[in-house]
Amino acid sequence: MISQETINEAHDRIRSFIHRTPVLTCQTINDRAGADLYFKCENFQKIGAFKARGGLNAVLQVAHNQEGSAITTHSSGNHAQAVAFAARQVGMPAYIVMPGTAPQVKKDAVRGYGAEVIECEPTLEAREQGVRDVITRTGAVLVHPFDDDRVIAGQATAAKELIEDYGQETPFDVILAPVGGGGLLSGTALSAHYFSPQTRVVAGEPDGAADAVLSFQSGRVEKAPFVNTIADGLLTNLSERTLAIIRDHVSAILTVSDEEIIAAMRLIWERMKIIIEPSCAVPLAVVLKYRDQFTGQKVGIILTGGNVDLGKLPF
Amino acid sequence: MISQETINEAHDRIRSFIHRTPVLTCQTINDRAGADLYFKCENFQKIGAFKARGGLNAVLQVAHNQEGSAITTHSSGNHAQAVAFAARQVGMPAYIVMPGTAPQVKKDAVRGYGAEVIECEPTLEAREQGVRDVITRTGAVLVHPFDDDRVIAGQATAAKELIEDYGQETPFDVILAPVGGGGLLSGTALSAHYFSPQTRVVAGEPDGAADAVLSFQSGRVEKAPFVNTIADGLLTNLSERTLAIIRDHVSAILTVSDEEIIAAMRLIWERMKIIIEPSCAVPLAVVLKYRDQFTGQKVGIILTGGNVDLGKLPF
Repeated sequence: MISQETINEAHDRIRSFIHRTPVLTCQTINDRAGADLYFKCENFQKIGAFKARGGLNAVLQVAHNQEGSAITTHSSGNHAQAVAFAARQVGMPAYIVMPGTAPQVKKDAVRGYGAEVIECEPTLEAREQGVRDVITRTGAVLVHPFDDDRVIAGQATAAKELIEDYGQETPFDVILAPVGGGGLLSGTALSAHYFSPQTRVVAGEPDGAADAVLSFQSGRVEKAPFVNTIADGLLTNLSERTLAIIRDHVSAILTVSDEEIIAAMRLIWERMKIIIEPSCAVPLAVVLKYRDQFTGQKVGIILTGGNVDLGKLPF
Repeated sequence: MISQETINEAHDRIRSFIHRTPVLTCQTINDRAGADLYFKCENFQKIGAFKARGGLNAVLQVAHNQEGSAITTHSSGNHAQAVAFAARQVGMPAYIVMPGTAPQVKKDAVRGYGAEVIECEPTLEAREQGVRDVITRTGAVLVHPFDDDRVIAGQATAAKELIEDYGQETPFDVILAPVGGGGLLSGTALSAHYFSPQTRVVAGEPDGAADAVLSFQSGRVEKAPFVNTIADGLLTNLSERTLAIIRDHVSAILTVSDEEIIAAMRLIWERMKIIIEPSCAVPLAVVLKYRDQFTGQKVGIILTGGNVDLGKLPF
């Protein structure tokens, strides 16, 4: 059970290691959306993504509690960097299992933080086997990308800051986050629940990785009918843990096509002059596609990350 | 003669129309440079570039003094948008002469502000003829991209803000700006002279448009030995007016290759997660190339603009 106090403690624990990222607005995009959008720029976060928050909150506790002498995880990208970065802060070795298909820029960055990268096939089974092998070999402690209360509590601090900085006098009508494994979405929903209870939370998911929307309806962890999306950070399924939180505290999960994701990404690049990765554009794509559900509202959007491979842009 | 009071008045005149842009820092780039860099993010300015400042300062005075009923200018890009944007603020028609080779995104943006675009050959002669034709036809008032005290005083406000926000307790050792026609550089040098006299000003110029460095040495307005650079905002020569200010108040003009410009641009994209255009990367390329001249110093850099054609990236 992740309490309000758990999230406050997580924030105090990680505060000196992270950026309090800025919140940007853009008149052109507001006009396009017919709503007032506040973008929480976690693309400017340490390691270029919100995942620094959850990784730090977990690794700092592993180190403090002396739970082990090394850290391991599996990740398609940003969580890998987050754990590598966090492990370096506490001086612990990190072993990161990554699919060989992950963007080169992300593998390079993980190695840049001094971690060892173990490449594997791009399946959940191969990743989990890779982690088991590392644990057998090194005795490392696993920091799961999302199925971990400490990680979720860390991710929750992004929405907490957004609410503290821009949701006090006039609360947000809605806060949006993308959903992959559900760590960020769970944390966002819990922060809204505790710190801004009148704010609803809506998730965006790619059509080509639409597992969460099914799980949300059925109450069981479902797989996506097909997997094919540019949003490479959102390929994972929910866990029982994240599904339970999401079912309790999220209002809706809305899906968008890759075309809509790319258009939203391009709009942010061109008009806001900031670099975001495709997964990060999903919430804006949702706001533009389901315009009627957000018209005239005060909308918070977690911009999740900016670690895009400049050699492989979709435009 | 542009006095301190002229710059203060320009700032008061345009303040409500522009963003007070943020100043960003980046630990990775500081480590690479061996210096403390403060980036004044004019890529986040209205129209995506500092040129909004000079355009507004001129157009607001043309309107206020009732000097004419329309505005015209010639520009390879950002000044075109700036004048179109400024003319719209005061409800005046704008006729913008642009080389046909200017990036499509810039031509589209000018039209988006309601101005008429007149395309011409990509030579200074063709541009100036185009403007003369417009004036004959419409009686419009010319707002020159840089050979204009009102424009220079407007551009000066970028460095003024940088000094006010980050150069008070510990003054900058140096502030860098790129040089094309010299409007921004003149304004930057004047602001440093008036508001932070212990700060030297250094300019960056592409090897493939190296006219200013020659003019700076000879004291006459020289042409570049050859013109071939990705920094499409820096192709113009100085004027007598900007050369005089630059000779009085600039310490050095240092040149960099297109390779160095592209590497600096990519570094800013990848590590700062912000979008800048090639011309904008020239000062960082200078700091990295002439490292010894900046080691351990507090360095201000004017990031001039972010209007890059995403379909034509150099990486």
